[in-house]
Amino acid sequence: MTGAQQEGDDQSVSLHLLKQKMADFAKERNWDQFHSPRNLLLAMVGEVGELSEIFQWKGEVPKGLPDWKEDEKVHLGEELSDVLLYLVRLSDICGIDLGKAALRKVELNAIKYPASKNYGTNDDSTAEMCG
Amino acid sequence: MTGAQQEGDDQSVSLHLLKQKMADFAKERNWDQFHSPRNLLLAMVGEVGELSEIFQWKGEVPKGLPDWKEDEKVHLGEELSDVLLYLVRLSDICGIDLGKAALRKVELNAIKYPASKNYGTNDDSTAEMCG
Amino acid sequence: MTGAQQEGDDQSVSLHLLKQKMADFAKERNWDQFHSPRNLLLAMVGEVGELSEIFQWKGEVPKGLPDWKEDEKVHLGEELSDVLLYLVRLSDICGIDLGKAALRKVELNAIKYPASKNYGTNDDSTAEMCG
Amino acid sequence: MTGAQQEGDDQSVSLHLLKQKMADFAKERNWDQFHSPRNLLLAMVGEVGELSEIFQWKGEVPKGLPDWKEDEKVHLGEELSDVLLYLVRLSDICGIDLGKAALRKVELNAIKYPASKNYGTNDDSTAEMCG
Repeated sequence: MTGAQQEGDDQSVSLHLLKQKMADFAKERNWDQFHSPRNLLLAMVGEVGELSEIFQWKGEVPKGLPDWKEDEKVHLGEELSDVLLYLVRLSDICGIDLGKAALRKVELNAIKYPASKNYGTNDDSTAEMCG
Repeated sequence: MTGAQQEGDDQSVSLHLLKQKMADFAKERNWDQFHSPRNLLLAMVGEVGELSEIFQWKGEVPKGLPDWKEDEKVHLGEELSDVLLYLVRLSDICGIDLGKAALRKVELNAIKYPASKNYGTNDDSTAEMCG
Repeated sequence: MTGAQQEGDDQSVSLHLLKQKMADFAKERNWDQFHSPRNLLLAMVGEVGELSEIFQWKGEVPKGLPDWKEDEKVHLGEELSDVLLYLVRLSDICGIDLGKAALRKVELNAIKYPASKNYGTNDDSTAEMCG
Repeated sequence: MTGAQQEGDDQSVSLHLLKQKMADFAKERNWDQFHSPRNLLLAMVGEVGELSEIFQWKGEVPKGLPDWKEDEKVHLGEELSDVLLYLVRLSDICGIDLGKAALRKVELNAIKYPASKNYGTNDDSTAEMCG
């Protein structure tokens, strides 16, 4: 399998790959100078704003976005990606191994919210996944 | 190599793995009912807020966070992870292949901002990585 | 009418009054040193996150919040206020007259979106009030 | 003094006035149908994103923005206003008296952080104004 094929396969897109791509991207454009932690954080907040704008006037939206046009979904994918790319870059610049941290957080969440417990009711205190 | 070892290796933490873990997590706790697109988006905004609180009174922070205590870095890793986990879950619920979309966005950015161009000056219009 | 009575009257709560209260508050606690523009901006983002958390698992919420308990409404008022107070303080520290700017923006919006036009359909492009 | 003159005076720009202007604005354009609490919240998050974009690549910024061009300051005033206007509208739609809530919150903060205490050191736990 070629590199291009591997990258096209969702299952092989790792946080490590994205981190490396972002680092190369910044270096090739002499942008390391701008990539301080708080600059990247504010850039990410900007992208979260653009993501929110997509959903702002829609009222509740069903899972899978059945009524969205294809170009709306493409746009959504771009804004989700922008948030992800800055998040990956911010983590890298802060020296945080995001993949490792995320797996650890899932484990912490599993301890905090045992699967055996009954969460069936609409109760804010138990519905947090990442509290 | 065992599954546990693989997961502990940053290079193998894929978006697909995190998506699967989040889906299992929600299903085991009967939380799918809460995971609508806008609920997850607002939950992500909440986590972005917690991430921002870590940086809010610090003034500018150097790369690598040399002066931060170990427990501060652990806390930072947790908040970065919370944003990531909701972002992964939001993408999944919207039917967006986040890994594929992110790779595509990097390619679009490379076209928008050619590497050969000189970006050496502090110019907002050129310093965007995910504009 | 005494000053205290006036302050209790919603109609007399001006942005100028809140700006002055925030400036006095910071000065009395020696907090001016922390109130740089980007510190305050990130603090505001943190409060926007807390505000979002109130709404995150609720699905769509009707106007007037008819089903909310009194203490939930009080909590909501506190989070809305936190966003406002940091916004007022950020504006002051940046040397922006927020009240004047807001009135001007309403006028600009009125030019951008003439009242005579028909906005009756659910069209994202026209439903922006502060685009 | 005419109404126009009063409005031009910062000291008379009250939250009540802005609330009324936003309500009239929405009614005249048939936009009440879009102004649900979560729609307005997400619209506000979008504006917070635009505000953050202004600051994202600047590194630390001194108080008063001495090096900013006039048109940058005007733009900043517009984005600060957009956040304020949606915040005022969100509060109104939720049935919250924002001016009253803000004054109450300042009083709660004064109790939480007594002025007599020494806050002179850079300590995150004490530097919060709206904790």
